[in-house]
Amino acid sequence: MKLLMKRKKIVENEYLEKQVHKLNKIGIALTSEQNLDKLLEMIVWEARNLVNCDAGSLYIKKDDLLDFVVSQNDTMTKRLGEAKIKELFKTFSLPITKESVSGYTALTGEILNIPDVYEISKNSEYKINLDYDRRNQYRSRSMLVVPLKDNENKVIGVIQLINALDKAGNIIPFSGAMAEELICSLGSQAAVAIKNAQLTKDLKAAYLDTIYCLSEAAESKDKDTGMHIQRVSNYSVALGKKLGLAERELELILYASPMHDIGKVGIPDAVLLKPGKLDVEERKIIEQHTVIGGNILSKAKGPFSKISKEIALTHHEKFDGTGYPNKLIGEEIPLSGRIVALADVFDALINKRCYKSAMSCDDVIEIIKKESGKHFDPKIVTAFFDSYKEIIEIFEKNKDTPLENSTKI
Amino acid sequence: MKLLMKRKKIVENEYLEKQVHKLNKIGIALTSEQNLDKLLEMIVWEARNLVNCDAGSLYIKKDDLLDFVVSQNDTMTKRLGEAKIKELFKTFSLPITKESVSGYTALTGEILNIPDVYEISKNSEYKINLDYDRRNQYRSRSMLVVPLKDNENKVIGVIQLINALDKAGNIIPFSGAMAEELICSLGSQAAVAIKNAQLTKDLKAAYLDTIYCLSEAAESKDKDTGMHIQRVSNYSVALGKKLGLAERELELILYASPMHDIGKVGIPDAVLLKPGKLDVEERKIIEQHTVIGGNILSKAKGPFSKISKEIALTHHEKFDGTGYPNKLIGEEIPLSGRIVALADVFDALINKRCYKSAMSCDDVIEIIKKESGKHFDPKIVTAFFDSYKEIIEIFEKNKDTPLENSTKI
Repeated sequence: MKLLMKRKKIVENEYLEKQVHKLNKIGIALTSEQNLDKLLEMIVWEARNLVNCDAGSLYIKKDDLLDFVVSQNDTMTKRLGEAKIKELFKTFSLPITKESVSGYTALTGEILNIPDVYEISKNSEYKINLDYDRRNQYRSRSMLVVPLKDNENKVIGVIQLINALDKAGNIIPFSGAMAEELICSLGSQAAVAIKNAQLTKDLKAAYLDTIYCLSEAAESKDKDTGMHIQRVSNYSVALGKKLGLAERELELILYASPMHDIGKVGIPDAVLLKPGKLDVEERKIIEQHTVIGGNILSKAKGPFSKISKEIALTHHEKFDGTGYPNKLIGEEIPLSGRIVALADVFDALINKRCYKSAMSCDDVIEIIKKESGKHFDPKIVTAFFDSYKEIIEIFEKNKDTPLENSTKI
Repeated sequence: MKLLMKRKKIVENEYLEKQVHKLNKIGIALTSEQNLDKLLEMIVWEARNLVNCDAGSLYIKKDDLLDFVVSQNDTMTKRLGEAKIKELFKTFSLPITKESVSGYTALTGEILNIPDVYEISKNSEYKINLDYDRRNQYRSRSMLVVPLKDNENKVIGVIQLINALDKAGNIIPFSGAMAEELICSLGSQAAVAIKNAQLTKDLKAAYLDTIYCLSEAAESKDKDTGMHIQRVSNYSVALGKKLGLAERELELILYASPMHDIGKVGIPDAVLLKPGKLDVEERKIIEQHTVIGGNILSKAKGPFSKISKEIALTHHEKFDGTGYPNKLIGEEIPLSGRIVALADVFDALINKRCYKSAMSCDDVIEIIKKESGKHFDPKIVTAFFDSYKEIIEIFEKNKDTPLENSTKI
């Protein structure tokens, strides 16, 4: 008898040992993922793998609410297909109260391991919300709800695992202490990884915001040009995405393109702020903002410096070689410069500027079409029309308020 | 006999289980540490704790070299004291060749577990460097050299543990597979944590560089003002440190202070670039750069926005209430504004400016002393003299090259 127990203990130990090693590997994978959205999906995925279950969700604490951010369900995915599932997914927020299971866990820091959620006692503080089951004809049964606690033991979110499966695919309760311990450990690693990814995301957002703020100040000499710079930066990314650029390149464009007109700080007021038309000499002076911008940005050392310099210098070149400052032709113009050229002109046309009124969308489209192969790279014009819906969304979302002034192109 | 082996297996399993749990906790602690230097120390510390040894070092791979970045040694610390040890520590670089043990591990990715480094076979590819032992009258004996492999299995560094100890404090060889496995796992977690901390460090450096670049462009209208902005930013941090500000506050000042003159973009050329003295009206106009700067930065959303606005608006206020734009008195002026006021004036005085030649250090010191309680907060003047050595180092390290031009204060 004693020997039997020992044998069992060895098997358990070996299983646990294997799982903890796995957990270690997962921890490394989690902390390697810097993209917050991907990380959140990965956490649920790995947790489900670790204890073998059909479905799982993730909630992130935000002030007094729990944001529902990830939902995975193998049965539903098999039934409806991945695309449909993605379409159906809607994020929502939940108050953190003891009434819901996730709220209960977020509030108390306790693990809930429920064999069948349809048989939760009426006297229990928490209840199960059956909306999901009813809406999707799904049967939630066993459930493991675990807090994500960070290194200071603060709950930053909740992971909810649904319907543990045995090897034959039958729904069983989650195994006791072992599953709880594993998911708890995973939860701690996940919490730290989430915090890190969030810090990086916040830092990047602050960085971008500073670029927008300083670039706009430099371009507009304190007159508010509204959201022009943000829009150009976002159009450029949309075009780049359609052109198949990698994520890293898109990020470079996002950060570098707002600085395209930084060289205007070097243009004398007498020219930059002159009302009405400029003469030939004055045009030559204003065209120098490309060269000046390139010089300014050539002093920067960061990862965006090469591309920001490139964009500042070449965003007024034209595909047919009639642009400035270097009359580059076709693909002599760096791709980034060709992208921002279209984004910049499109935004100038579609917005009310001090020296002309806004054009209708149809007129703008007509001009862009006509300039394909002349001002613009035809490839980028195609990308523009292919991402037209997204571009208009960016425009609508970042519209200037009516009071805002503007500058020349 | 069989039973005995099983008993041994159980004890081993339980030991390993405990250690792996510990490892898990360490992984979380490592990934929570964002400061690279602290992280590197922590890695060696935790590794030494995990396998109980007297000393340890860490090498980080940088191109074709191994940088020696951490050295811990309990025996030496007991003998000489912590302070002396820190003073003696010198970072150096090693070529990555098979000749040294750390180079061997970095190159091959193999673990070296050596019972006595004085008895390495003459035919071995690697040799032990006994300089450290000779210089410090230390006896290195057992050694465990483990690669730090990241999530892509690339070696990013090497950890070298020296002189494993038994419970009585006697030097013993590192236990075989178990110690190797533990340190290897720790190494993987450490590698990812190092990569993350490095990414954050790089991102912050890029951010600061962009702020420097754009702030300088805005202030100088493309005329190179040299390193003025970098110096003011660094003096301000030195002053803040001496005043006892927390690390986070120092970081805010580092990032926010370079933008103190951003409002100059709103000052007309006719005033900003006027040679010679300004009349009363013109002075009033130029003084508006504080208000304009405050307005520009009030649009920013990042973590530095509050303090950068504060600094832009108040860095020309004077402690006795005779400054501008709001004639604030004493501690009505935010601390950040009072700090940058002194840093900005000091740098203006000590550098050659277009409208006056540089002053001698003695003259500058005299002015700052005289202005204590008038222009400057006496507390900050004290901090200035207390950190004078560091301030002069910042000045020397960031000197303008002779060709560079300059602007007015």
